[in-house]
Amino acid sequence: MPFEMQAKDFPLLKNDLLLRAARGLEVERVPVWIMRQAGRTLPEYRAVSEEHGFFGICRTPELACEVTLQPIRRFDLDAAIIFSDILVVPQALGMEVIMKPGEGPVFPEPLAGPDDLARLQRPVNVQEQLGYVFEAVTMTRHKLEGKVPLIGFSGAPWTLMGYMVEGKGSKTMSKAKRWLYQHPTESHQLFSLLTDVVVDYLVGQAEAGAQLLQVFESSAEYLGPDLFAQFALPYIRRISSEVKDKLKAKDIDVPMTIFAKGGHYALEQLADSGYEVVGLDWTVDPAGATDRLGDKVTRQGNLDPCALYAPEESLDALAKQMVERFGTRRYIANLGHGIYPDMTPERVVTFVDAIHKYSRQD
Amino acid sequence: MPFEMQAKDFPLLKNDLLLRAARGLEVERVPVWIMRQAGRTLPEYRAVSEEHGFFGICRTPELACEVTLQPIRRFDLDAAIIFSDILVVPQALGMEVIMKPGEGPVFPEPLAGPDDLARLQRPVNVQEQLGYVFEAVTMTRHKLEGKVPLIGFSGAPWTLMGYMVEGKGSKTMSKAKRWLYQHPTESHQLFSLLTDVVVDYLVGQAEAGAQLLQVFESSAEYLGPDLFAQFALPYIRRISSEVKDKLKAKDIDVPMTIFAKGGHYALEQLADSGYEVVGLDWTVDPAGATDRLGDKVTRQGNLDPCALYAPEESLDALAKQMVERFGTRRYIANLGHGIYPDMTPERVVTFVDAIHKYSRQD
Repeated sequence: MPFEMQAKDFPLLKNDLLLRAARGLEVERVPVWIMRQAGRTLPEYRAVSEEHGFFGICRTPELACEVTLQPIRRFDLDAAIIFSDILVVPQALGMEVIMKPGEGPVFPEPLAGPDDLARLQRPVNVQEQLGYVFEAVTMTRHKLEGKVPLIGFSGAPWTLMGYMVEGKGSKTMSKAKRWLYQHPTESHQLFSLLTDVVVDYLVGQAEAGAQLLQVFESSAEYLGPDLFAQFALPYIRRISSEVKDKLKAKDIDVPMTIFAKGGHYALEQLADSGYEVVGLDWTVDPAGATDRLGDKVTRQGNLDPCALYAPEESLDALAKQMVERFGTRRYIANLGHGIYPDMTPERVVTFVDAIHKYSRQD
Repeated sequence: MPFEMQAKDFPLLKNDLLLRAARGLEVERVPVWIMRQAGRTLPEYRAVSEEHGFFGICRTPELACEVTLQPIRRFDLDAAIIFSDILVVPQALGMEVIMKPGEGPVFPEPLAGPDDLARLQRPVNVQEQLGYVFEAVTMTRHKLEGKVPLIGFSGAPWTLMGYMVEGKGSKTMSKAKRWLYQHPTESHQLFSLLTDVVVDYLVGQAEAGAQLLQVFESSAEYLGPDLFAQFALPYIRRISSEVKDKLKAKDIDVPMTIFAKGGHYALEQLADSGYEVVGLDWTVDPAGATDRLGDKVTRQGNLDPCALYAPEESLDALAKQMVERFGTRRYIANLGHGIYPDMTPERVVTFVDAIHKYSRQD
């Protein structure tokens, strides 16, 4: 195994703003990164993507590494996030997922009902099934040369289940929600199985070199307070608790982030779910969210992604306003959702530079 | 003109629970109706729809009336809502809208940019362009024979603009939001134009016999607090204020409802926007919403529509819990969003009966 593929002797980290902010330590300026910064908008990504396809990149460590590094070369970001997809977990359970350009990921054979749970392969050996992600993480951590920390991630169980049942994006998630009402026991079985895999997957990423772990509950918006408390939050908590326990036994300590998009109704619970950082979508008012989260977690977010369509001066002013609203302590600047494919690199520069400019502590 | 087409000498209203609840008066039980109760789920609707098409029904008063009455015949509902669509307003402005089965409404030629505003026909004579809705309202009010009140409605300007720019449903509304950031002046021009039409349209429905008017800001979820305050709320306020002024001059007094789906961040402002009733989606906690709205408005909502997939006893318990949480004063029971096409009439019965059973004041 070439040296750069081993998860040890990583280069010294030169910019640890993200990790300090996540832990509530002093920072000289607010760290900033952008959800989906790797892929989507960059022409150099599209070139790789056209040749190898989306999951081709995910499954080839050299390509995933290259695509992860692309935005770091271009922009003054304070973190890299490994290029991958939340749906690699359903793939590891034996489900086929194909990426339809312009439409997104599609499952040719979604879970039609609880009987289909028998189709899922288990137990899942994440080293075998998802080792390609771990390799990509290790390689990227080396190739980053300590420039910025590397974020690993996973989808949360409800969000994964939503895709596995719907088979594609949905405006209502009504098929998946139907399970929650009609098959609560089997839903919990599926969530429990997914939680086991997600825990191992996140632990594996941290062992491979990821320095922060983010859990995406991207479909929290379809649930309400009751369903979330019953079917999402228990697994979100179990993930942070089990990941931290398992990593502690290996003497690894990485901060964790929970981002529940549309989970405005559960901010208090999220602040108390065992994560150092709570991500916020753009529908949440910074002052109100700060009150509700308290001072025990770091906030991450939450500029409306569409602000990147604004003229340069407007975007600069919006980024300034955001920093003023959140303050510079316990705060990681980001968008409130992933960047959209038609946004320009120029505006990414405007956004990143504005955060740095307006948050510098002199 | 046959008698039943004249907007006068309407039958005496026998069940005014909805109107009393809207005005904060005493009720002997909580009124209940269901968004999208007319159409979608009912086999007798699908029969009409297959023959005449969606907009064919909208544009033929006899058919719109028939379809409006169908759920009233079947269920013990406390209100009827005229069968129509929010997109009749863009149609009145000269835009073509076609209904694609399984996909929803589509604009073959959406507004690509501000230059396209010149394509919109104005001024709009709502009597000419939307008279078919007014006829349907008048006919339905007669044919209801005073059984329950009749609700009229309109989309709010931001929601209408979203469809007019996107051309169809969207997961992000990013094209429409791009306008807000890149063309704020022209966006306001469009909102102002739409507001003028919506005001006349709602006034016309009340004159035709509608006894409550609901404004749907169905796409509030895509905005955040800032964009909503800037581009949606001012027009929501203008609508209630101008509609009430114009109706007052005609000696007509009808309560109004604002339902901003996904507008959790603006409940305080909505409570203060000139409407008697504020609709709530299912992501909002009843107790928290009640605190934020105060006691000057009636609350409407907000059971998760997917609860109608639950077994009978579970749904009964969820409806009971909802009534307990909201209480029986200043409250109109409903779902937190329109009913979905695959829900069964049996569960509608369960829901409606449960509300009546658990809210009766003895």
